[in-house]
Amino acid sequence: MAGGRSDMVLIAFMQAQNCTNYPGSWRHPQAIPDFLSAEHYMRIARTLEEGKFHLAFFDDRLAMPDIFGNDHKLAVQWGIRSVKMDPVPLMTAMGLATKHLGIGGTCTTTYYEPFDVARTWMTLDHMIGGRAAWNVVTSMNDSEARNMGVDAHMDHDLRYDAADEFVECVLGHWQSWEDDALVVDTAPGGVFADPTKVHRIDYQGRFYKSRGPFTVPRSAQGQPVLIQAGQSGRGVQFAGRWGELVFASYRTIAQAKPMYRALKDAVAANGRNPDHVKVAPPVYPIVAETRAMAEEKRDFAHSLARPEDALCLLGEILNLDFTQWGLDDPIDSAVLDSMTGQHAIRDRIRQVSGKQNPTPRDFIEISKRGTIYEAPIFCGTPKDVADQMEEWYREEACDGFVVAATHRPGGYEEFSRLVVPELQRRGIYHKDYAGTTLRENLGLPPSVAKGPPTMKH
Amino acid sequence: MAGGRSDMVLIAFMQAQNCTNYPGSWRHPQAIPDFLSAEHYMRIARTLEEGKFHLAFFDDRLAMPDIFGNDHKLAVQWGIRSVKMDPVPLMTAMGLATKHLGIGGTCTTTYYEPFDVARTWMTLDHMIGGRAAWNVVTSMNDSEARNMGVDAHMDHDLRYDAADEFVECVLGHWQSWEDDALVVDTAPGGVFADPTKVHRIDYQGRFYKSRGPFTVPRSAQGQPVLIQAGQSGRGVQFAGRWGELVFASYRTIAQAKPMYRALKDAVAANGRNPDHVKVAPPVYPIVAETRAMAEEKRDFAHSLARPEDALCLLGEILNLDFTQWGLDDPIDSAVLDSMTGQHAIRDRIRQVSGKQNPTPRDFIEISKRGTIYEAPIFCGTPKDVADQMEEWYREEACDGFVVAATHRPGGYEEFSRLVVPELQRRGIYHKDYAGTTLRENLGLPPSVAKGPPTMKH
Repeated sequence: MAGGRSDMVLIAFMQAQNCTNYPGSWRHPQAIPDFLSAEHYMRIARTLEEGKFHLAFFDDRLAMPDIFGNDHKLAVQWGIRSVKMDPVPLMTAMGLATKHLGIGGTCTTTYYEPFDVARTWMTLDHMIGGRAAWNVVTSMNDSEARNMGVDAHMDHDLRYDAADEFVECVLGHWQSWEDDALVVDTAPGGVFADPTKVHRIDYQGRFYKSRGPFTVPRSAQGQPVLIQAGQSGRGVQFAGRWGELVFASYRTIAQAKPMYRALKDAVAANGRNPDHVKVAPPVYPIVAETRAMAEEKRDFAHSLARPEDALCLLGEILNLDFTQWGLDDPIDSAVLDSMTGQHAIRDRIRQVSGKQNPTPRDFIEISKRGTIYEAPIFCGTPKDVADQMEEWYREEACDGFVVAATHRPGGYEEFSRLVVPELQRRGIYHKDYAGTTLRENLGLPPSVAKGPPTMKH
Repeated sequence: MAGGRSDMVLIAFMQAQNCTNYPGSWRHPQAIPDFLSAEHYMRIARTLEEGKFHLAFFDDRLAMPDIFGNDHKLAVQWGIRSVKMDPVPLMTAMGLATKHLGIGGTCTTTYYEPFDVARTWMTLDHMIGGRAAWNVVTSMNDSEARNMGVDAHMDHDLRYDAADEFVECVLGHWQSWEDDALVVDTAPGGVFADPTKVHRIDYQGRFYKSRGPFTVPRSAQGQPVLIQAGQSGRGVQFAGRWGELVFASYRTIAQAKPMYRALKDAVAANGRNPDHVKVAPPVYPIVAETRAMAEEKRDFAHSLARPEDALCLLGEILNLDFTQWGLDDPIDSAVLDSMTGQHAIRDRIRQVSGKQNPTPRDFIEISKRGTIYEAPIFCGTPKDVADQMEEWYREEACDGFVVAATHRPGGYEEFSRLVVPELQRRGIYHKDYAGTTLRENLGLPPSVAKGPPTMKH
């Protein structure tokens, strides 16, 4: 028992699309269908700030799910993440609708240039006053590759090697204006900035090169916070090196505790302070005034799922077309071993099923992909939900939670109004924001630009 | 004389940086130095909307000017466009601060993928209610190339061949959701969208390929407006094919008239209606209550220029390091003929100087780069300024103007408060917005998605 901790971190799981990460959510009668407008996201931002959330966070995908049968018909017809917008304009809108809420978004290292990503995220950080976070991912599948002009998705581990370089290069740019480089002296002969404090980084790696100098000075929090969500062996190594906020999928508290510990150890192994890295799993809180009402809500939400959802979304995340096999056919080891999609899910299905060659049905039943049972459900009264959250938090299964919504905006509203006050009463969650930047509010140390990077290649 | 025209178009020339396009502007005593905050741009957006501007438009550059002497010292020290942010978050902020103002931004075709650009701009168009415009450029110089992982900038005409494909692919994506594809029927068994109305484009060109389906439905104005600013032979051809709004640099009304006509002819030659393409040159209006005050303002603003500004900015735009030559050395024909930077400026210097081998001094004196004399100055009382604008407009030298500011936000404020009412009084400029989308306000025809693109490659 950790005892005494009072710094639970809450993150809202957001999607720049027609549904929450639950594909059935757009069919919910209380879902507001203005998902193509800024107001949809700004309304949620205001609700999250009322609930003192630390961060709203967008995932991303550069394609709709169309691996299953090599066809987008199901995704379009049933709204299975068929819309996917660029998160940056939505993040800007949410940041401008709030004063303290952190705003995070995903951008892949696989199809962009580090200079560009560094510039976009640092610009955003200025526009929203030092509250931005970048979630580093390496992309998923061939559909994304083909939209972005490439025939097939890069091999899993190679992608992480490239991502290591990518992040090194982005951080190099972010730190290439020293903290006190700007002068802005408008008197005659006065200088704009000190040229001895703005540096080219001359980055030359195996996958990326970028010269600099970077064109955006440091922000109110120095630089955006880095988020990471990889859970494979290589993913944990990457998170240990770079992540300041780590999203990890845990099914149960028993499973979570050793994995949480392993992540903190990976951070320490990289010479970093484990207290400065916050780990949060996604959960579905479903709360109501009575337990029976909450259970009704849960079952109603679950009833909105369609059978197509699981197969479409498994195909997307694994980069495998399940129409190749019958529902109960074992999938070839060679296919599973060489797959370029998300390794963590594959590894878990093998482990839980006890099979080297699980079937599509094993994937559907164990992952529960596309349903609200994909993540732990904390269901019941405000006290019930807070009890479960407190247990995970106190037992050191996590530092906080990524709150997923069964529908938008209601899922966030009910949580903010019913559960947040209960968490605050227990003294495990802040009553107000500690400062104005995301780093301050997450309790992270200030980011300091140390001058010219001394990276070796 | 056209007579009777009442549709003058006004665009504000914006930069996501520390200065306006006049590098001395940050030293102006009335410049507000919060250029790293959203409020800086939102304040300007509100002013422009008060003046019923059709559009605020951002240029872009993926590097600071450091070709001159292969060093960024001058750019950083004197604030010569040393800051350059990603325009998209700023555009979002300006769009959210307004209800009618169009918001345009530049994105190069040279370092991005069409799917990505199509997605970012269509997302922005949704977030700001159908008021977005994309300015298609092909980038400038080796500094940008080196930041983006490439050794040298692509050859000028080849870049335009690639850009033709790029735009074709972006438009293909934008039109791949038919206008009535979205259904969003939340009843049991109801569909999200009609899968027969959402299409892969399977674009396969010489430079780009992208499969689709695109992940963003059509916007309130169908799709963003296309802006183009190329003025070389190849640039005019490109503008004639794609531009819906064209920015062209004209020095005098006499020079402008045949060039304006040539642009409209290029539009007609592409089978398009010349009335549906608006042409606007950049100008510096400098206005005050009396002519003497305006002239004082002009001379004061001009005094803020530094000698370093011209050489830095010429090097940037031409992709040539002028430290190779003395100020009065003729520049080799081979160098000028093969240069990969902006051809229109080179051609003009040769034409005006009458020299095949102009000197750096010729470039500085003729282009007046980095000073307010780079564009025509309309100086004087509101009546004086309106007289000059009306003359250009009525004489068919242009359809409107790109208003550059000697300083921010004052340059836009003075123009909106003093000149706009005078233009309105004369009946040549709208008294209010015609509608809510940029296409409506520019008098462009609606954009219709015709279904599956039938492009041949």
